[in-house]
Amino acid sequence: MQILDGQMASQAIRDALKMEVAQLIAEGKKIPHLAAVLVGNHGASETYVGAKVKACAEIGYRSTLIRFEEDISENKLLNEIENLNNDPGVDGILVQLPLPKQVSDEKVINAIQVSKDVDGFHPISIGRMVQGQPSFIPATPHGIMLLLEHYKIDTRGMHAVVIGRSNIVGRPISILLSSNSQPGNCTVTICHSHTHNLKEICLQADLIVAALGKPEFLRADMVKEGVIIIDVGITRVPDPSKKSGFAIKGDVKFDEVSPKCSYITPVPRGVGPMTIAALMKNTLKACQENN
Amino acid sequence: MQILDGQMASQAIRDALKMEVAQLIAEGKKIPHLAAVLVGNHGASETYVGAKVKACAEIGYRSTLIRFEEDISENKLLNEIENLNNDPGVDGILVQLPLPKQVSDEKVINAIQVSKDVDGFHPISIGRMVQGQPSFIPATPHGIMLLLEHYKIDTRGMHAVVIGRSNIVGRPISILLSSNSQPGNCTVTICHSHTHNLKEICLQADLIVAALGKPEFLRADMVKEGVIIIDVGITRVPDPSKKSGFAIKGDVKFDEVSPKCSYITPVPRGVGPMTIAALMKNTLKACQENN
Repeated sequence: MQILDGQMASQAIRDALKMEVAQLIAEGKKIPHLAAVLVGNHGASETYVGAKVKACAEIGYRSTLIRFEEDISENKLLNEIENLNNDPGVDGILVQLPLPKQVSDEKVINAIQVSKDVDGFHPISIGRMVQGQPSFIPATPHGIMLLLEHYKIDTRGMHAVVIGRSNIVGRPISILLSSNSQPGNCTVTICHSHTHNLKEICLQADLIVAALGKPEFLRADMVKEGVIIIDVGITRVPDPSKKSGFAIKGDVKFDEVSPKCSYITPVPRGVGPMTIAALMKNTLKACQENN
Repeated sequence: MQILDGQMASQAIRDALKMEVAQLIAEGKKIPHLAAVLVGNHGASETYVGAKVKACAEIGYRSTLIRFEEDISENKLLNEIENLNNDPGVDGILVQLPLPKQVSDEKVINAIQVSKDVDGFHPISIGRMVQGQPSFIPATPHGIMLLLEHYKIDTRGMHAVVIGRSNIVGRPISILLSSNSQPGNCTVTICHSHTHNLKEICLQADLIVAALGKPEFLRADMVKEGVIIIDVGITRVPDPSKKSGFAIKGDVKFDEVSPKCSYITPVPRGVGPMTIAALMKNTLKACQENN
């Protein structure tokens, strides 16, 4: 059993990006600039945006964090997006979700200029991805693909089972894994709340992406020997033994499942750090294409 | 075994549309207008476009068929699309594919105004479909969904196997069948040329969509009793016994497979006519949303 160390793979990617930035500086070219928009002050959103801004600093990108109060109007937020769209200094725009209820996530995402859509959530980005055209791929599925690539896992012909059909993880990773690419070319089964025989299906899988958001859902009796497991779950579970009062759990019961795996991602230090690496790669791509 | 009669279901949908047009006329509202662009004079394309124009006439839509020579330049075609985009009389634009090699299919499709994209091939249309937002759904997968709906087949929880991952059929139908909708909510496995154990996977299927383009590929020993079969294949196979010199074959060996099915589409008179019905529905939708 080998751990797919997302922390290490992410660091390797960020180190490579750091060298690319040094090269850009040496050539007098534009340095990538990510603008992150954060509304309100939810703990998890603060943490995620903080990690992204920190990654920018480490690599040498510019970043701007734009904060708004929880009660911001939709129009004001849309105006801000428009300003960022029109600002030639900004290469990538990231709006941390979820947004407060008076603001439509969809409207805000659709307002982001496609060439700056580093989160890859705009319908054009998704449509291009589906059609195999060049596009920004959403950070989490992109991060998973980068992790498989980093560990040189040849997924061709594997039966991949994706548990969860969310727009941000399950749906796009099912498309990417079944695309004619490497990693990719898997036979993919997408499962969700209406799937009857999940255990039977999982037992056939060579690769499982667990993205349903139920802590420790996937158990040892649901997987076959030699399976590859990608655990996208990240749920805070109360744990009085921790100073913070909670523990982070994935969707996979790691202790039980890991002995049967050929490869498995831990939680934390698995998929999480890869999403940051993917976002950083998208930001460089945006900068190169826009300048 | 029940035949899913696409000819009949398509007619029922077109009859309903005809009544809607009568209603539009009675209310003095705009009548839907489809513009079809045909380049060159390939037999199959002529047939398909002809059927679409005929369907418009029958329902009471306006239609305009715009023909170009095989050697048209990409720019000239893009200009024509722009004219159609700007023509308030035109509600839907259909460009019959494939286009000659000097013209990029992708550029031409991306040039169609999204609100007139009745073929649903624009990346924004695809992206919206993936995200479950209102959009134009490509004619063939939309036609399949309409057929399942017409026969009131409750697909929820079924294991659907889609053979083929093309942008126009396999990929979108795999997304639609796995979406949270009715028809939909299937566990979906998407298979393709890199799938190893296709027979084993097909034997698990409650519903199979065969869209690989290999005549009579799916045989009786590959399906279980009671399966629902949607045959998207339509290949001309030489047949000296026919006056035309060819027969139309689906991807399913019908004689052999049909006795095991609960439902099956024939070829012809199955999915084919449904694509026309779907296009006609999209054209009405475009007219209603644009006016």
